[in-house]
Amino acid sequence: MEIERIKFEGYKNSIITADEAALLFENGMTVGSSGFTKAGDSKAVLPAFAARAANEEIAITLITGASLGHTTDSDLADANALYKRMPFQVDPVLRKKINDGSILFIDQHLSETAELLNNKHLPKIDLAIIEASSIDENGNIIPTTSIGNSATFAKLAGKVIIEINTSIPNNFNGIHDIFIPENYPERDIIPITKPDSRIGKGYIEVDPEKVVGIVFTELPDSPAQVTSIDEKTAAIANHLIHFFEVEVASGRLTDSLLPLQAGIGKVANAVLSGFSKGNFKNLTMYSEVLQDSTFELIDSGKMDFASASSITVSKACYEHLMQNFENYKDKIILRPQNISNAPEVIRRLGIIAINTAIEFDIYGNVNSTHISGSKMMNGIGGSGDFARNAYLSIFVTPSVSKENNAISHILPMVSHVDHTEHDVDILVTENGLADLRGLAPRERAIQIIQNCVHPDYKEQLQSYYERARLRGGHTPHLLEEAFSWHINYSNSGTMKNPVSVEHR
Amino acid sequence: MEIERIKFEGYKNSIITADEAALLFENGMTVGSSGFTKAGDSKAVLPAFAARAANEEIAITLITGASLGHTTDSDLADANALYKRMPFQVDPVLRKKINDGSILFIDQHLSETAELLNNKHLPKIDLAIIEASSIDENGNIIPTTSIGNSATFAKLAGKVIIEINTSIPNNFNGIHDIFIPENYPERDIIPITKPDSRIGKGYIEVDPEKVVGIVFTELPDSPAQVTSIDEKTAAIANHLIHFFEVEVASGRLTDSLLPLQAGIGKVANAVLSGFSKGNFKNLTMYSEVLQDSTFELIDSGKMDFASASSITVSKACYEHLMQNFENYKDKIILRPQNISNAPEVIRRLGIIAINTAIEFDIYGNVNSTHISGSKMMNGIGGSGDFARNAYLSIFVTPSVSKENNAISHILPMVSHVDHTEHDVDILVTENGLADLRGLAPRERAIQIIQNCVHPDYKEQLQSYYERARLRGGHTPHLLEEAFSWHINYSNSGTMKNPVSVEHR
Repeated sequence: MEIERIKFEGYKNSIITADEAALLFENGMTVGSSGFTKAGDSKAVLPAFAARAANEEIAITLITGASLGHTTDSDLADANALYKRMPFQVDPVLRKKINDGSILFIDQHLSETAELLNNKHLPKIDLAIIEASSIDENGNIIPTTSIGNSATFAKLAGKVIIEINTSIPNNFNGIHDIFIPENYPERDIIPITKPDSRIGKGYIEVDPEKVVGIVFTELPDSPAQVTSIDEKTAAIANHLIHFFEVEVASGRLTDSLLPLQAGIGKVANAVLSGFSKGNFKNLTMYSEVLQDSTFELIDSGKMDFASASSITVSKACYEHLMQNFENYKDKIILRPQNISNAPEVIRRLGIIAINTAIEFDIYGNVNSTHISGSKMMNGIGGSGDFARNAYLSIFVTPSVSKENNAISHILPMVSHVDHTEHDVDILVTENGLADLRGLAPRERAIQIIQNCVHPDYKEQLQSYYERARLRGGHTPHLLEEAFSWHINYSNSGTMKNPVSVEHR
Repeated sequence: MEIERIKFEGYKNSIITADEAALLFENGMTVGSSGFTKAGDSKAVLPAFAARAANEEIAITLITGASLGHTTDSDLADANALYKRMPFQVDPVLRKKINDGSILFIDQHLSETAELLNNKHLPKIDLAIIEASSIDENGNIIPTTSIGNSATFAKLAGKVIIEINTSIPNNFNGIHDIFIPENYPERDIIPITKPDSRIGKGYIEVDPEKVVGIVFTELPDSPAQVTSIDEKTAAIANHLIHFFEVEVASGRLTDSLLPLQAGIGKVANAVLSGFSKGNFKNLTMYSEVLQDSTFELIDSGKMDFASASSITVSKACYEHLMQNFENYKDKIILRPQNISNAPEVIRRLGIIAINTAIEFDIYGNVNSTHISGSKMMNGIGGSGDFARNAYLSIFVTPSVSKENNAISHILPMVSHVDHTEHDVDILVTENGLADLRGLAPRERAIQIIQNCVHPDYKEQLQSYYERARLRGGHTPHLLEEAFSWHINYSNSGTMKNPVSVEHR
């Protein structure tokens, strides 16, 4: 324990153990916890509550920033400790229970949870758990590697538990910028005009009266998985880098582009890494998560500044960052997720948004969340916040997956729509890039089939489109066959040659 | 001709006839024209071009604010004068040609056309036609009953034709507020903080060097159709008024609510009219179009101020407005559609958005545009701009239509998604209201089936949901049956008892 991390006298008698904190949970409570893409999550209290719930009939609604790290969501799900979960998750055990209906899940735009809480469109937060690196003289919280929804939780919760993480260096501050928009009808401008605009406070304000416990932990964040760039992701990155080079050459963009957003995962990470190669300079980022690639670009001098709501990096990158923090302090900023993902700021800055699709269709609709229309994968995350209001909305995916390319990720019709045809500009697979700007649906279909589809599926998709086109319509479809690829996969283990194609 | 409406000397030799103006069109040109929900459209030059094109092989890409009035889109479509059309239309002849593929259509969020043009994601505007009530001393345009995309067209077009409409009273000014956002990367804040914020100029700036002709016309706007409030729309309005009363009683809203947006059409109009009954006061509107109901609310003292991009009202309301314009001058404002529909402003003001659905499904996805997945109706208009960033996103529709209630507007799965489950808060039919806030998909299905579906379809929809739920998933679906209602309607003229239900 490093008691000197608590600079507020009033809290010094509030130190409790994680198990004691877990006893503050009551059945049916709505609990808000820090944690965004595994960063800055509760590492002591939530696991202790999971342990308690394993032996007791108790369940809560749990609202976080985004995904939690370690096995916390698994442990909570296993212990039947969750009644409802939002707004995002990536956990296999939790996912299974969401899909069998035993845990309710709300898949929310990451910018909106704080809005819904403030507007009382969600239940009141009974209890908040917020990770801190330290507590200032007035009892306020210096957060760690993410902000997420913590500032909103601290503002709205009836009771607050602060989890001080001593694995975070004590100098890890000065990069947090906490701005809470006014409640309606008093809402004012969010005055960010550049990625490095600083508009708020360096700490999360909390009423000391509400703080019911301080818990110490020394467990670091779960590291991001290190994934090597394979042939497909490299090809996707190359298509996209080439696209940006043409945009610069045509005068539509400068060689600093516009602020970048990249979803989490290996493809988006590979694309960002790709910028180190091209003739780009003074790049900036206005995103929701900083990954290894961000720090690579900063280190190589290609990127000037990066704004997000969390830092989720590999173990090596994490250690490098913590050891050399003073070098990065003026190059990164962390914001609440309703600010990092604010529609207002995204449209104003003109974000170039790069996100991963599970599947897209011949007209440009994108599914980011569901397998075969029913099963939740992770959630929409911030992709909708960015795609809808971006300067350019880009989605990437490998064209096929599984043995023998059994799954095509480009389909006649997506089985769930997260991003509509109205909101998608550029689609990229390892085969190529479809630039949908200024194209009507029939023109988009031609581009997508020509450039993006895997050769194994080209004829099949062309056949669908041709036969639909003969039947007519602005967006020609054969409703009786639109999901035949998904159904065929479910019945026979491959999307190739669905029955309906043989019937043509 | 009222030559005194031209206060700029340099234009006085530029007066031409509509037929002469029509000769300035060249094959393949991209033409931008004023006109938004029939208001302030070109009434002389576009029709003259249609007449020319009827006897000549010539076609253009036509971009407007939204729909045009009179028979202009019909005439252009009939004359094969359109290669591509965007971002919205409501014309039966044009619609037919869009659906048979002979005219390409891009169905765009109304806020985005100006963005795409400024960002050069659409072709350069060769020629702009802008309706004016007069021209000021510097050659700038005083617009009429809409702003739409006119300011962007005037800024970007190579050549400009001004159409002076002498049916508009000469005192019809002072309500226009023209603000053009800066190009990227210099984009700054849109400083609107209240519906009545005035942030721009009273005229549309144009470089007189670009003005190639001034045409006079005296044809008024097409009036909005007067529709009486029938039983179903009255029931929808009543459900919604009751909902707002409960919101006020619960303290989530004050009796001034928050700025209202209402889509065009009889249901939205009926809902707005309904506010004259409840205990509401000092209402405001931040919408894209002002309809009769707006002026009724102003007249009854219920509404303080209304902002939009156009005025589209009945003949009687139009005449009343023009004759009593000075009484309304400080109560209404017209803005460019990228400002009336700006995500930034919509989120900041906390808009209550009320729009019409063609169909919605048991999980809250909404189709606003397509019949049976393929055929375009009108277009998404501004519904996505508002729904996505609103404080509350509400969609209304009658539960059934056609003889014997052959069509249910609540379905297992919508055939086209314009508004995703993430963006829809409240659904209303004449049967009742489903409040989806804070609900997971399985909870939404129960609410929607209980409250919104017509009794003729309740059992059938319940059966679909129950069988899908048994198969599992976060959003349970039976892909092989999801469109069976649409297919059944197409095959047998009714959605009742689809084949698949008999198979259960």
